[in-house]
This record gives sequence, C-alpha cells and structure tokens, in this order.
Amino acid sequence: MAIAALTDTERNDALAMLPAWTLREDGLAIGRTLRFADFGEAFAFMTRVAIEAEKADHHPEWFNVYNRVEITLTTHDAGGLSQRDVTLARFIDAVARGADA
Amino acid sequence: MAIAALTDTERNDALAMLPAWTLREDGLAIGRTLRFADFGEAFAFMTRVAIEAEKADHHPEWFNVYNRVEITLTTHDAGGLSQRDVTLARFIDAVARGADA
Repeated sequence: MAIAALTDTERNDALAMLPAWTLREDGLAIGRTLRFADFGEAFAFMTRVAIEAEKADHHPEWFNVYNRVEITLTTHDAGGLSQRDVTLARFIDAVARGADA
Repeated sequence: MAIAALTDTERNDALAMLPAWTLREDGLAIGRTLRFADFGEAFAFMTRVAIEAEKADHHPEWFNVYNRVEITLTTHDAGGLSQRDVTLARFIDAVARGADA
C-alpha cells in the first residue's frame, strides 16, 4: 500500500522543525551527518535508531566510519518524503541531543 | 605509530583466502556486500562486527540500507591494507556463514 508523500507545504513546515537536516537536491530525501566522541558512541546511537526503526518499520540509509554517521531518510513507497521520515528524523534529533525520545 | 601495510605478495595471498571480497581499484581497500533476510538480521550482523571492531580497535567503513550491508576495510595508519583488515574480513566472513568466529 502506498504511503502518502508530503505536499510541498507539509515538507517545508517539517523542514522548519528539522534545522539539522538538509533536503537533498531532488527534494526526495533528507540527510544529516552526526559526529560522536568515538566509534562506540556512534554505534550506540545507531543501535537506538535501529530499534526505533524496527518498531516503526521504517529504516534509514546510513553510512558509518569511526565516529561519523551519515543518515539519509526517504520513503520508497511514497516516492519521496513522508511523515515517517519526519517522525524518524525527530527521534534521531532527540537521541543526538541525549534527550529521552 | 604506523602499522605495516601488506606487501603485494602478502596482499595476494590474503585475497586468495577471501574470495567474497573485492580489491578496490586503487589497491588500498577491500569491499564486500552482504544481504540478509531483513533489517533486523542485517543490524544483528553489524552489532557483532561492531563489538569485534571495538575489541580490535579497527573499524569498518560501512553502509546499510534495509537488508544490505556494504563494507569497506582499509587501514588509514598503514596507507592501505594491513593484517588488521584481513583479520576483520575473516571474522566478517565467519559471522556471515553463521559460524563461530
């Protein structure tokens, strides 16, 4: 079942709440790069996100080298950004802040 | 302290033992792509590798999307491949086989 893509207005409103994220040039994905103290901290972060992603059945595309994690969020079933990406991005921001998410 | 890079002979001998891995064009890294049943299996694999990487203080560069994991191994302190990459690659192969590693 297809998931609804965000309208332009919805996308702009969402991005205003996600200042750490960059809209990909094609407008179909958002990305954020995070840096941690070391690999252990980076992978601990990834583990928290992985568990949340499984719960939501919505998964990131991500690259890790040592203390750096590059995340891309998009919704293939929507052909672009959906509310699922916004929800996961907000979770990631909360984890990155060290807050309860 | 610099880590010794493999000689050409050592590298070729090592690659003969690692048929699932591809030498990068520049000869300075090896790569392998793995596919799993789903994200949970892929991330469980990554977690095992992450723990081993921490123990060895030698970390992969890797990309994950859903059930796919693309791994690159190189040793920056050696300016190319070292025995550390070979050891981690063999561990990864053993985990991928479901064997005790």
